[in-house]
Amino acid sequence: MEKESLLYEGKAKKLYKTSEDGLVWVEYLNQATALNGAKKDKVQGKGELNNQITSKIFEKLNERGIASHFVRKLSKTEQLVKEVNIIPLEVVVRNVAAGSFSKRLDVLEGHPLPFPIIEFYFKEDRLDDPLINEDHILALGIATNEEIQKIKTMTHKINHALIDLFNELSIKLIDFKVEFGKTAEGEILLADEISPDTCRLWDLKTNEHLDKDVYRRDLGDLVPVYKEVLRRLEEI
Amino acid sequence: MEKESLLYEGKAKKLYKTSEDGLVWVEYLNQATALNGAKKDKVQGKGELNNQITSKIFEKLNERGIASHFVRKLSKTEQLVKEVNIIPLEVVVRNVAAGSFSKRLDVLEGHPLPFPIIEFYFKEDRLDDPLINEDHILALGIATNEEIQKIKTMTHKINHALIDLFNELSIKLIDFKVEFGKTAEGEILLADEISPDTCRLWDLKTNEHLDKDVYRRDLGDLVPVYKEVLRRLEEI
Repeated sequence: MEKESLLYEGKAKKLYKTSEDGLVWVEYLNQATALNGAKKDKVQGKGELNNQITSKIFEKLNERGIASHFVRKLSKTEQLVKEVNIIPLEVVVRNVAAGSFSKRLDVLEGHPLPFPIIEFYFKEDRLDDPLINEDHILALGIATNEEIQKIKTMTHKINHALIDLFNELSIKLIDFKVEFGKTAEGEILLADEISPDTCRLWDLKTNEHLDKDVYRRDLGDLVPVYKEVLRRLEEI
Repeated sequence: MEKESLLYEGKAKKLYKTSEDGLVWVEYLNQATALNGAKKDKVQGKGELNNQITSKIFEKLNERGIASHFVRKLSKTEQLVKEVNIIPLEVVVRNVAAGSFSKRLDVLEGHPLPFPIIEFYFKEDRLDDPLINEDHILALGIATNEEIQKIKTMTHKINHALIDLFNELSIKLIDFKVEFGKTAEGEILLADEISPDTCRLWDLKTNEHLDKDVYRRDLGDLVPVYKEVLRRLEEI
């Protein structure tokens, strides 16, 4: 397996072609961003933390029968994934009110929601990733109704699996964002990453932030916090 | 039938109790507002135009079997309606891209949509009426799933009836907002108003704005435009 030309460079990852058809080489970068890129910093060690955390989580989800693009970890900062076309949706699940949900709807941060809420955001930086509904997704041709229903079913399943997994780590899963991709055969797979960059994780006992809010809200150094999540993941 | 104490004063209407249980006296005001009240002006004659236009439209919808709170017109500026508890949702239907839809999703104003899109906004001035989805409606306890489905079905029916009606007036129905209310018996009725304040109406031939965008966008005097809509309505 050889790493070949650069396919795409995002805010936190570089994707490369490989010598094998249908496989993509992912390199996690030492970059932290927030507020749709308005806040941006180089953070030494972040790439390897997120690569290792995501790899561990995708392995755990795989054990529970959740299909993802993840193939295997290649190095501390690299992983191999199946090639997919990313569906331009940020799929957010909220178990507890926090962040933009709390602000927009005036619900106290930390208030448990009666059921897991799914939100779709149109992944389009220049529009600031607006919240959209299922009619918008259909009208804009982002996904078919069948694909939307499949994504919702998978997302609820991922949420249940993640709640259980984080519970084992004494972590409460407040909310998270996932992305999905379509293989050349049209199969929908969980893609992108699942890490403290994409989840709100609160310590079960202290409610301490174990996620990007530490960076987003300038609460302290991100590295020891992400290290703590990885440490707990490696213990189980 | 006697007009009694003031029940509620909104941006464009005053509601009064009446001597009869379950009936409310509505007075349309000469006030124009836009941008959630940030732009506000007294406009002589607007109250009677909207009262007459709304009365006419509710009559027409009634003929097509669409249940609304409307009972009868009382005077040029007043109408009698059934008492309902307004469900705090602004239900928007979009047939053609315009306004905030065009801005948020970067779709050219005037671009026809592949099917009528329904959007729900949480009617809450202090939150600036945020766009929400059906999960939000359920989680916030705004309506039950059964009520949401009923509202969507009614809204599509209203849209079809309004498209036909405005077509007779050589007017294209671009988009509109409706509100629904619940009677003491739990029946859901179309409520509030349907007027150039709550619809985007474009002349079929010239694409001229025959609606509040004239005021919202400072394109000219609102009164002759609303008068033109009323004139066309009175001709059929």
